[in-house]
Amino acid sequence: MNIIRKPDTADVTTGALPASRKIYVSGEQHADVRVPMREISLHETSGEPPQVVYDTSGAYTDPDATIDLEKGLAPLRREWIMARGDVEEYEGRAVKPEDNGNIGDDKLVDEFPNKRAPLRANNGQPVSQYHYAKQGIITPEMEFVAIRENMAREHNPEAAAKAIADAENFGADIPEYVTPEFVRDELAKGRVIIPSNINHPEAEPMAIGRNFLVKINANIGNSAVTSSVAEEVDKMVWATRWGADTVMDLSTGRNIHNIREWILRNSPVPIGTVPIYQALEKVERAEDLTWEIYRDTIIEQCEQGVDYMTIHAGVRLRHIHLTADRVTGIVSRGGSVMAQWCLAHHKESFLYENWEELCEIMASYDVAHSIGDGFRPGCGADANDAAQFAELETSGELAQVAWEKGCQVMVEGPGHVPMHKIKVNMEKQLETCGEAPFYTLGPLVTDIAPGYDHITSGIGAAMIGWYGCAMLCYVTPKEHLGLPDREDVREGVITYKIAAHAADLAKGHPGAAARDDALSRARFEFRWEDQFNLGLDPDRARDFHDQTMPKDAHKTAHFCSMCGPKFCAMEITNMVRDYAKDGMDEMSEKFKEEGSELYKEDYLDKPAAE
Amino acid sequence: MNIIRKPDTADVTTGALPASRKIYVSGEQHADVRVPMREISLHETSGEPPQVVYDTSGAYTDPDATIDLEKGLAPLRREWIMARGDVEEYEGRAVKPEDNGNIGDDKLVDEFPNKRAPLRANNGQPVSQYHYAKQGIITPEMEFVAIRENMAREHNPEAAAKAIADAENFGADIPEYVTPEFVRDELAKGRVIIPSNINHPEAEPMAIGRNFLVKINANIGNSAVTSSVAEEVDKMVWATRWGADTVMDLSTGRNIHNIREWILRNSPVPIGTVPIYQALEKVERAEDLTWEIYRDTIIEQCEQGVDYMTIHAGVRLRHIHLTADRVTGIVSRGGSVMAQWCLAHHKESFLYENWEELCEIMASYDVAHSIGDGFRPGCGADANDAAQFAELETSGELAQVAWEKGCQVMVEGPGHVPMHKIKVNMEKQLETCGEAPFYTLGPLVTDIAPGYDHITSGIGAAMIGWYGCAMLCYVTPKEHLGLPDREDVREGVITYKIAAHAADLAKGHPGAAARDDALSRARFEFRWEDQFNLGLDPDRARDFHDQTMPKDAHKTAHFCSMCGPKFCAMEITNMVRDYAKDGMDEMSEKFKEEGSELYKEDYLDKPAAE
Repeated sequence: MNIIRKPDTADVTTGALPASRKIYVSGEQHADVRVPMREISLHETSGEPPQVVYDTSGAYTDPDATIDLEKGLAPLRREWIMARGDVEEYEGRAVKPEDNGNIGDDKLVDEFPNKRAPLRANNGQPVSQYHYAKQGIITPEMEFVAIRENMAREHNPEAAAKAIADAENFGADIPEYVTPEFVRDELAKGRVIIPSNINHPEAEPMAIGRNFLVKINANIGNSAVTSSVAEEVDKMVWATRWGADTVMDLSTGRNIHNIREWILRNSPVPIGTVPIYQALEKVERAEDLTWEIYRDTIIEQCEQGVDYMTIHAGVRLRHIHLTADRVTGIVSRGGSVMAQWCLAHHKESFLYENWEELCEIMASYDVAHSIGDGFRPGCGADANDAAQFAELETSGELAQVAWEKGCQVMVEGPGHVPMHKIKVNMEKQLETCGEAPFYTLGPLVTDIAPGYDHITSGIGAAMIGWYGCAMLCYVTPKEHLGLPDREDVREGVITYKIAAHAADLAKGHPGAAARDDALSRARFEFRWEDQFNLGLDPDRARDFHDQTMPKDAHKTAHFCSMCGPKFCAMEITNMVRDYAKDGMDEMSEKFKEEGSELYKEDYLDKPAAE
Repeated sequence: MNIIRKPDTADVTTGALPASRKIYVSGEQHADVRVPMREISLHETSGEPPQVVYDTSGAYTDPDATIDLEKGLAPLRREWIMARGDVEEYEGRAVKPEDNGNIGDDKLVDEFPNKRAPLRANNGQPVSQYHYAKQGIITPEMEFVAIRENMAREHNPEAAAKAIADAENFGADIPEYVTPEFVRDELAKGRVIIPSNINHPEAEPMAIGRNFLVKINANIGNSAVTSSVAEEVDKMVWATRWGADTVMDLSTGRNIHNIREWILRNSPVPIGTVPIYQALEKVERAEDLTWEIYRDTIIEQCEQGVDYMTIHAGVRLRHIHLTADRVTGIVSRGGSVMAQWCLAHHKESFLYENWEELCEIMASYDVAHSIGDGFRPGCGADANDAAQFAELETSGELAQVAWEKGCQVMVEGPGHVPMHKIKVNMEKQLETCGEAPFYTLGPLVTDIAPGYDHITSGIGAAMIGWYGCAMLCYVTPKEHLGLPDREDVREGVITYKIAAHAADLAKGHPGAAARDDALSRARFEFRWEDQFNLGLDPDRARDFHDQTMPKDAHKTAHFCSMCGPKFCAMEITNMVRDYAKDGMDEMSEKFKEEGSELYKEDYLDKPAAE
């Protein structure tokens, strides 16, 4: 592959998903808020309205939109940002050769051709959604998020209250209906973030918080070993097509600056980075890093529009020795680099030492902190140890400072944790980090399945999402083995959509069960097309069905390949249902006479799940 | 494909797994007990002994064994069975045309050529492992199972007690070390079964019970629509290669009898069936079923050697109407057939009515009951409803009768259950079914991902396994869409091995973490080959690594494709570790002087996970 080839619009996947169309729901407080959703139409025999689902795919799935990677997406937030009157356009930092790893011109990826001048705060005040929320201001971003979370459902207070009451949310405050004021209030409490760098106006606002739908992140990025710019832009578009709520660009090779610009200008979702990866590419050895180099990298990325940054400021000199007896030491790349730096200099981490200044920079672009977990366990044996929890306490301290400086902030978590040790992670995080949103990688619940770590981690992700984790960082089947390709990205994203949605159901988010129920009805009624289309991956579902029953007629067959046409459980059930209903009254009387257990109070009057 | 082609020995996968050899651990009480295990050798630089793992693959992975599908596997239990002196060989039931669906000779699958005459109890006493256990007898099967569960680990009482204490097992009685007497005692209490039809002496004894390692089942079987005998035998061998502890033959088309014989004679694991599937093939309509036809089918399968049978005797006439308002009614095929029968005749189920006789038959071959969950929910919306729990109570009654008749018995469970409703299933089952082992299908925690239901269900399976479920019935990616092929079988089995193992870890089974730890050490030390070989699927792990780093040299590279050669978290950690250790004493003093929080009691003295 030609690694420097520019991304080509024809390379990325566009067009609607099967039976789907893009709809936009308008704001009430802010008339120019238009929230995209995906409407899945059902077969006319269903007698059901279309199913509206959350849509992260941006303009790529809107046939009315013109996609041109060299122009980038429309800057939908630009006017909202300018209208607030608290930012200024300025010349910005010039791109330096080291930003792209001092790569030779022959290997330099073309710059994105239509760069904008960067914006920053003009009056020394934060320009963050957190700051506005504290001022009592409901921004268009907040209303956007409120509308988005409701997924066009009607507010049915009774049904919503029931969904919440029947579930188990471990103390979360799930709202019956998400209002802009609820979003503002949660923001002001630090319990949700809306990653929204003022230099990434292309991103559609989204919420990361325990009382909102659980979100997922997909990692992409080239490395020194492999991958190209065109491939990474394609992966970003592809990941959001399947449901990635944010994308982290973890590039570590050359061309980092230019690749990131292409990604940002074309991304409909917030982009996260780990700035120390790029800072490292600017020096020879970890110990050569300085606050100045790091700071300059942060500003570079703030100006480009990165929405949240993983910062390993919780790795403190005094805690490093706690990792010495671990089975797998420090496995976080950022964490190990900072540990090496601290030991080499026998000094406290320059990130910890300069945290306040860092916060001031971030607040002036509205970049959210994602406080890194540099000491996250690298295997089940190291889970929940002294090093991990020491860092978590530090993260709590850092979050408090970030809020004081007007920043949005979330906190990262593990990693590798056996099932019985997952819940305490969530509890400790809530307790020590003032309910800042938690963002975890998996966790993997066992280490014996390389090649299947999307599954080992999907189990832990579903559980910690249920317990209260706000965003789940996906793991692909290639984890620990290689860089994910396109298929791995899809597999990872769908696995994590499953985990996040399973958590939403278990937390009782009103409306979360609507899609399950619609799909179940389609399944029961043999509406095969609807069953495919309502699923997370209609293409795969259809393909799998075709493998056994390839004919078109089979798509309307009232039987499936498991039982065949002669006896089918569902077909029989339909008969049973008619029969049972007709005979119900008569039978009920008969059973009562017989003193049947049917009418025992504990079966019929109480919810079964208590 | 030619559906009637005989299975060919060359078709099935044989040979050891990478870096593995078959070892046999001998019994102490029974000298002819030889328990197969798999020993994975590690690279010499590890300085570690080989890792011994549980092995379900039978002779197929033993290069010293001769595999001949037409002869079948060696009948390893035959002598133990005969030595007890309580069985007789007899002529047995003649194969009838309807046993193979009245198929024409031109489409009839060849009979297995080396059939044995069947055995049955000769004195009216049960010949079940449960019966022997109640008599205080420790059979070779029990000793086999005890050795097998320990996986050749040394009994270290202190470490074992710690593993149990550090975990959470929800009231299970996990033993520090499995002794034959422990197995006998658990059998006598009805808390474990060893499925072991006296006519399936080829099967290697294994345990299904809450206080043992969590087991998994793989379903195979042809249908009226697709599949062949050669393919099904291959799938059985393939499934056990990857770790299936039992296999259910759910064939529903023609040739059922002959296919099953080929499977049984060549299966190293217990085989389960749902006899009503075959009984159904012998009649035109569900309502034409009779106790006589069903009974005859049971005897047919008892004589062939089926080890456990799903019997939907819990579907009672009086409970059927409870399913009428469900979203997906009755989705169990057996359950819906029985419901149809009950309604058509307005009579109680012939299975419920004839349960005692059924138990007497099963006890005289030692076929275990797997009491079916005919009212299991078919979607999350129907989970834990009155119909499901009414049947569970009936199952409890039936289990008591089965024990009185000397049978082994387990109870089946759901199905489709959102996360917050899973635990109550396990609790209710323990309470209502006298701690008979629970055997569930998944459960799927959401219904929105057709094509990925191995994952939606793997999440629920891991959780219910942790809560106490004894065996997890796999779900493949094709669930709800088509019949699984070979790759689907592998994907399903590995997913469920992950779920079962995650549960073992969380329950604190002593020894369960050994493989995780060995793999983690290999990962940390860049022993790539060991990392592949210790995994559940060495072939896929290697393949994935090759996709990014194809060269042989990369298999010994001290970096991975994620970070590349310049900076690598693990490499850096090694340096940090040396550094930290050297400076530890000095640093510790320094930290103490500074009044560091390091030495706070709650970090260093208490296990973190409490």
